[in-house]
Amino acid sequence: MTSTPAPKILAFDIFGTVVDWHGSIAREVDALQLGVSGNDFALAWRAGYQPAMQRVRSGELGWTRIDELHRMVLEQVLEQFGVRRLDDAHKSHLNRVWHRLDPWPDSVAGVTRLKTRHTVCPLSNGNIGLLTNMAKRAGLPWDCILSAEVFRAYKPDPQTYLGVASTFDVEPGEVMLVAAHHDDLAAARACGLLTAYIERPLEFGAAAPKDVSPRAGNTLHCASIVALAQRLGC
Amino acid sequence: MTSTPAPKILAFDIFGTVVDWHGSIAREVDALQLGVSGNDFALAWRAGYQPAMQRVRSGELGWTRIDELHRMVLEQVLEQFGVRRLDDAHKSHLNRVWHRLDPWPDSVAGVTRLKTRHTVCPLSNGNIGLLTNMAKRAGLPWDCILSAEVFRAYKPDPQTYLGVASTFDVEPGEVMLVAAHHDDLAAARACGLLTAYIERPLEFGAAAPKDVSPRAGNTLHCASIVALAQRLGC
Repeated sequence: MTSTPAPKILAFDIFGTVVDWHGSIAREVDALQLGVSGNDFALAWRAGYQPAMQRVRSGELGWTRIDELHRMVLEQVLEQFGVRRLDDAHKSHLNRVWHRLDPWPDSVAGVTRLKTRHTVCPLSNGNIGLLTNMAKRAGLPWDCILSAEVFRAYKPDPQTYLGVASTFDVEPGEVMLVAAHHDDLAAARACGLLTAYIERPLEFGAAAPKDVSPRAGNTLHCASIVALAQRLGC
Repeated sequence: MTSTPAPKILAFDIFGTVVDWHGSIAREVDALQLGVSGNDFALAWRAGYQPAMQRVRSGELGWTRIDELHRMVLEQVLEQFGVRRLDDAHKSHLNRVWHRLDPWPDSVAGVTRLKTRHTVCPLSNGNIGLLTNMAKRAGLPWDCILSAEVFRAYKPDPQTYLGVASTFDVEPGEVMLVAAHHDDLAAARACGLLTAYIERPLEFGAAAPKDVSPRAGNTLHCASIVALAQRLGC
């Protein structure tokens, strides 16, 4: 019999874990009828995400919000796909698709249940405005919005994971990171946090299902956020 | 006929505007039966608040959260009132009374109505953890928690007021500060924000009613947060 972990704070990765960036962007790009595949466009845009943040982590760029990094990558992707008919206002609107990402079907119900017994917040590299607009549109009832922007550091910088514990004046072991990405969870674990892996096999679209098999080290492995709520007795 | 201002973001001062620090602290201190007047104790604790922040603003202290500043002032006040029987755990618990402040009777209803058409958040010198715990206990449905801690500057530093606009990528004139304090509102106005004064005649207790008469310069002057919601058509 496994004991139930008792985190006070549940901090959620967002892109891929709580919301479906791939499907949301593919749908919006397809609807724009730009003559490009929404699936390919979404994957290319997301592929530029880590390299863009790396420019901040390395110090090549000063602190830069994800909204701006997304825009820089968007310009590259539009060029790469040969899309030239979007003016600045349309590009700005498209760039804010990251504020309009749809949650996975279980996310709102799961977070709502978890909120009854835990403090729930994002811990995302997305900026505060993006995460707030997303939550308001999707009905995600966070207790507060934590973000790389609060700590002026991008995950997997330890300042982000330890920053959650410090924000609430609790021990790292009283915080659980909830994420669909093993590298994020491993970095949190190295800081002493509890970890819960959430299976999101369709994160990269139905054409490229992701391996979601369990790996050693995580405190919990759950099929969904609702399953996590059940596991934590909420 | 006055036109209705249309702020996108409503940022609320918290201590005194949304929650009743005086009554909450006085009740808790009276219940502890320390042999001191809860009313006097609350006023003395709050009186140390601005001088403590001033030590941070002046650079004498590095960035220090309000929880820590409250604790420093608490030690002085306990000394001043000759209270010696609280051990460290009890002092820590009492210090967190600022996380347990009760909202004014109209606050939850007013913010809930305003949330339907605006983004609502605190802009308080309280730290993120304090404001989150307070909101969770009181049922204040903020869209996100903004705080001096996010901007690493205490009001009335312009970085705080302009930081709200920057966070949401809007103009300062699309943000309205809601507060029961004319100095806070004046500093926000100097940064280009809209302002709404809320009457809180009992902020310092029934024994010392506050002058809440209108002053020139504020966009709106309202008897309560519910009255503000009515005024903004929510």
